[in-house]
Amino acid sequence: MGLVVQKYGGSSVADADGVKRVARRIVETKRAGHDVVVVVSAMGDTTDDLLELAEKVSPMPPARELDMLLTSGERISMALLAMAIANLGHEARSFTGSQAGVITDSAHGRARIIDVTPGRIADAVAAGQIAIVAGFQGVSVETKDITTLGRGGSDTTAVALAAALGAEVCEIYTDVDGVYTADPRIVPTARRLETVTYEEMMELAACGAKVLVLRCVEYGRRSGTPIRVRSSFTSLPGTLVTGSIDDHRTDGEDGTVEHAIISGVAHDRSEAKLTVVGVPDRPGTAAAIFEAVAAAGVNIDMIVQNVSAAATARTDVSFTLPKTDGATAVSAITAVRESVGFDSIVYDDQIGKASLVGAGMRSNPGVSATFFKALADAGVNIEMISTSEIRISVVTSAGDLDTAVRAVHTAFGLDAAPDEVAVVHGGTGR
Amino acid sequence: MGLVVQKYGGSSVADADGVKRVARRIVETKRAGHDVVVVVSAMGDTTDDLLELAEKVSPMPPARELDMLLTSGERISMALLAMAIANLGHEARSFTGSQAGVITDSAHGRARIIDVTPGRIADAVAAGQIAIVAGFQGVSVETKDITTLGRGGSDTTAVALAAALGAEVCEIYTDVDGVYTADPRIVPTARRLETVTYEEMMELAACGAKVLVLRCVEYGRRSGTPIRVRSSFTSLPGTLVTGSIDDHRTDGEDGTVEHAIISGVAHDRSEAKLTVVGVPDRPGTAAAIFEAVAAAGVNIDMIVQNVSAAATARTDVSFTLPKTDGATAVSAITAVRESVGFDSIVYDDQIGKASLVGAGMRSNPGVSATFFKALADAGVNIEMISTSEIRISVVTSAGDLDTAVRAVHTAFGLDAAPDEVAVVHGGTGR
Repeated sequence: MGLVVQKYGGSSVADADGVKRVARRIVETKRAGHDVVVVVSAMGDTTDDLLELAEKVSPMPPARELDMLLTSGERISMALLAMAIANLGHEARSFTGSQAGVITDSAHGRARIIDVTPGRIADAVAAGQIAIVAGFQGVSVETKDITTLGRGGSDTTAVALAAALGAEVCEIYTDVDGVYTADPRIVPTARRLETVTYEEMMELAACGAKVLVLRCVEYGRRSGTPIRVRSSFTSLPGTLVTGSIDDHRTDGEDGTVEHAIISGVAHDRSEAKLTVVGVPDRPGTAAAIFEAVAAAGVNIDMIVQNVSAAATARTDVSFTLPKTDGATAVSAITAVRESVGFDSIVYDDQIGKASLVGAGMRSNPGVSATFFKALADAGVNIEMISTSEIRISVVTSAGDLDTAVRAVHTAFGLDAAPDEVAVVHGGTGR
Repeated sequence: MGLVVQKYGGSSVADADGVKRVARRIVETKRAGHDVVVVVSAMGDTTDDLLELAEKVSPMPPARELDMLLTSGERISMALLAMAIANLGHEARSFTGSQAGVITDSAHGRARIIDVTPGRIADAVAAGQIAIVAGFQGVSVETKDITTLGRGGSDTTAVALAAALGAEVCEIYTDVDGVYTADPRIVPTARRLETVTYEEMMELAACGAKVLVLRCVEYGRRSGTPIRVRSSFTSLPGTLVTGSIDDHRTDGEDGTVEHAIISGVAHDRSEAKLTVVGVPDRPGTAAAIFEAVAAAGVNIDMIVQNVSAAATARTDVSFTLPKTDGATAVSAITAVRESVGFDSIVYDDQIGKASLVGAGMRSNPGVSATFFKALADAGVNIEMISTSEIRISVVTSAGDLDTAVRAVHTAFGLDAAPDEVAVVHGGTGR
């Protein structure tokens, strides 16, 4: 049996009892004959407590020092976890991101992993030890300073380590028991997926599914590392993220497993819609607007441009963006109002996005029709549409979002039979 | 103006306000034209809180993991301090012990500094930055694991860094405002010393003065680094530890400053006395006893052997040792009872040790006589005596200790005039 990388989030190690429970689970895996490398996040509220301390000494703490501060969180949880494992009679060694060879760029607070050189981890495993690695952190290749990876950083650490060590699987333990066909808080009849492809999982993550962050799945896909999402509170098998939608094309032939046409429905309440009204309909004006927005560091998601009203030769340009970037975008566009010559800006943060994701969509032309009919029957007005090869997304009013998600979920036959419905809890991890 | 290394203890940075106060003091030093390197301990109760967490997950945590856990304490305080300094408009960079080049052996929990290679600190200083270094911690030259230095470790880090950087002075900020002629809690008329030699300070530290640990003073002496002990709560000048007792021999001649004959009176309540009764008075028996004690890892302080009673050819051997080692020593000696052939063991932990320290003792033969007369006049019974070139120590009953210290302090004219008496607070630092 090969090497397993396990990642435990902050809610799994929220207190001493959580640490001991996780230690038992790790030791079970080791006793089953696997080599085990563990990636752990900071305990429960540690990060918030540290941020509160930082706020008390400085309103604008330097990013380098904020990273130094926050990385103490994993240092605490990993050392405690190693102690708890030792107490169960197994040798464990904790390692910081830097010691584990997690090499990043220098973007404090949102560093990207450039390379993983896990020599010390491999040595520990070869010596029969359980290696515990701090998630969420690395060391800058350039400055040698300590960095943090930003949201979902511990998941990314785990998949990157699993890839570098050639692990059999990377298990992401969290407070939900897998990837669901929709958020069970909105759709109580949502079903757990047994497997999902990297591409579908990436679309789901990009469209608001919180269970895994996009970059972690991207890393898994690039390296071909299977990722299993499961709960640290149950022994359920969770969801395995693996395989390509290209395998899907061979549906049923030569013995490959047949995938469902549709994986699930994701939703996102974190975006707002910004409309620039009365934009002169001539080449270069849209570019001027989006250059201003990009220069302000705002990421845009969907874009729609109305057909120009012939009488005025003016059009409206709408796009969606994170709500947190709303004020920045509005002032950036206001600054180019004179040069672009538009009339006004309308900002709407009471919107929602529903997305249908499925690898089978490509070979099933009826999917769009079913999708839009379901929304129409439910009385949901569509404000914007965007599609990819394996996804259809619509923007609705915030009030219509839950109705839209439920309608689509039912229309594609994703609802579980009543006796299949499980109780799950939502949550996010660092 | 040259480089100053400042060390702040946990009580100076106990909370956000403490961190901000210390930041202002550091910035004042920088604005006065000095380069500044700061060594900081963990905030207030952090270490105790972390130890409590460790206890909850494991009754016997591995020393390596305990060091990993505890070093998160300085990581928090140093990052916060760097943020607070940045908020005052100065550039600050925090560094772990490992990043600062504090190289140690592998003795987790009580590592010794082998070398200091402060390249990154020197670079930061050269770039005009204030470097903040985690005290109490280093990295093992052998295993590359994180180590802690044990009691007084942050003071030792500061002096070692000051030596490696060729600093002008190492300032140890604490919650007392200098080195006193005696503990002001016992002797309210004790006076602050303006200067004291390394040798005298080492004797005082070895005899129970808590203000500096022995190893830190030893490091200062070896490297010739002046150490100034002062309070972070006042602007008093504190006490400068510098110079050799050999300079003292040239008293008054060629313009050297004349030192006081006596520096002060130290006391120690942490020791116990162990007497092995009825030891056969033949060669090798004392050796057998002390070999057994040494093999058990117990450090012995004073030793007294009575004159053998001619009739029985048996004698008593007494020695003092840390109370914390009492049980270990008793069982180690009990184990050799048969081979050595002694009668019994008497263990007394109700003792105290008073020590008179002064470089001038060597050239003033009347010191011993004055010392013993003072104790006799005060009705203090002496149980054991030990001396060095610049120290006389006696063991008394615990109940007599305060009386002994006050009597000796007065006899050597150390009492301050009533209007010189300051209010100070005691305390210990990591």
